[in-house]
Amino acid sequence: MNIILFEKKELTDSRLILRDHRASHIVKVLKSNVGDILRVGEVDGDMGRGVVVTIKKKYPFIVELSVSLTPDDTPFASIDLLLALPRPIMLKRILSQVTALGVGHIYLINASRVEKSFWDAGIVNHMEYRPHLLQGLEQAVDTHLPGISIHRRFKAFVEDVLPEILCQYGSFVVAHPDSTNTLSRCLAGRRGRVLYGIGPEGGWGNFEIEKFKETGMTCFSTGPRILKVDTAVVAIHGRIEQLLEGRVEQLAECPL
Amino acid sequence: MNIILFEKKELTDSRLILRDHRASHIVKVLKSNVGDILRVGEVDGDMGRGVVVTIKKKYPFIVELSVSLTPDDTPFASIDLLLALPRPIMLKRILSQVTALGVGHIYLINASRVEKSFWDAGIVNHMEYRPHLLQGLEQAVDTHLPGISIHRRFKAFVEDVLPEILCQYGSFVVAHPDSTNTLSRCLAGRRGRVLYGIGPEGGWGNFEIEKFKETGMTCFSTGPRILKVDTAVVAIHGRIEQLLEGRVEQLAECPL
Repeated sequence: MNIILFEKKELTDSRLILRDHRASHIVKVLKSNVGDILRVGEVDGDMGRGVVVTIKKKYPFIVELSVSLTPDDTPFASIDLLLALPRPIMLKRILSQVTALGVGHIYLINASRVEKSFWDAGIVNHMEYRPHLLQGLEQAVDTHLPGISIHRRFKAFVEDVLPEILCQYGSFVVAHPDSTNTLSRCLAGRRGRVLYGIGPEGGWGNFEIEKFKETGMTCFSTGPRILKVDTAVVAIHGRIEQLLEGRVEQLAECPL
Repeated sequence: MNIILFEKKELTDSRLILRDHRASHIVKVLKSNVGDILRVGEVDGDMGRGVVVTIKKKYPFIVELSVSLTPDDTPFASIDLLLALPRPIMLKRILSQVTALGVGHIYLINASRVEKSFWDAGIVNHMEYRPHLLQGLEQAVDTHLPGISIHRRFKAFVEDVLPEILCQYGSFVVAHPDSTNTLSRCLAGRRGRVLYGIGPEGGWGNFEIEKFKETGMTCFSTGPRILKVDTAVVAIHGRIEQLLEGRVEQLAECPL
């Protein structure tokens, strides 16, 4: 936990009183004392500092912070993720990992190789997945929760929703091992945000790939190695960030 | 399991008899029958095909394969990892993930912020970590086990071992949030293999960074977000692969 996050409604007259795992973290891990300054942030709001005003170091822990926030200038994440619903335990890890890496929106969608039982898991409910997003923010020192939308019907998503949202992106790509295209060729010469799609274990079906292509999405492959979904999500996020960083460096070298 | 791996000593007259989790996988997941052809590979050897000769589908499962191998032309991994020993449960996941992504050698080293208890965990023993490497190979369809070396004394490693091994690499870089250098600048204009270093939770100490710099290693940062070690290992592997792929594409575009 590299930042103490709180909800807007928890703050009263710039005072924040913590009694849960955050208080426990401040007492047991940070070993804070009265007067110490901690990094704090309002979920989907500004970041700032919290001065420890009172602290009860015996269980049940209570910490009171005096909070001052400064306007947030963190840039909005440049990458969104389109993900075939993975196994619940893997989804939890993916949600906190991509939130830590920085992602603006996660579309969780169906695919023919998604096991039906995954849709019955608690994790697709807002109350269950939200803590994993918060964990990612607490890790990365960020306050901006990624948006999550859940689309249980593949065809309805790809025909009705996807065409509407693609205008937000400069590049929209889908990982597909059969492709002969590379990620850098897909992104070459393009500006703007990137949407990347990762299929289920076993990959996207032919029908799914055809439907993606109909909307204008391009397929890419990172080579012959078959990766687990969680590894692919993180490694390809890294690849896209590297390419986006390269764009910025190129612009810096060649000012107009 | 996308390839059935076996040890050289298990093969007799091109016949392989399986009675363990591999037999169980062939019966229960692949649901194979006599005559089916499976992808097989000898650990640190060639890949090929195994024809199911006999199969006992009731527990305890037994599968007999007739194996034919073809010379392996998989290129040797271009990336090695220098990793401060992480928490055992995280190390297991990292080992299988980087093996799946492709890594030639993993140096597990000490650092001031590595908890001493991590060195007492079973996972630093060959018999305990090897299955996690094999899992990575089985996932990625590869037979080449990464080398692992374990260095419990940071200073001895960085003074005596590191200078000897750096000649194998075209680039040797260490992730360090305070750096103002980017990964692409570190690798620009360089050829050859890449060694990348990832520190412990909380980062490398100042002494450690100074010692790395003395050997000629360069520091880079991927930005202000603080990542968990497992996320950083995979995302930065992805970034390096993207840069290496870019080199190949540049060469293809500008033949000599």
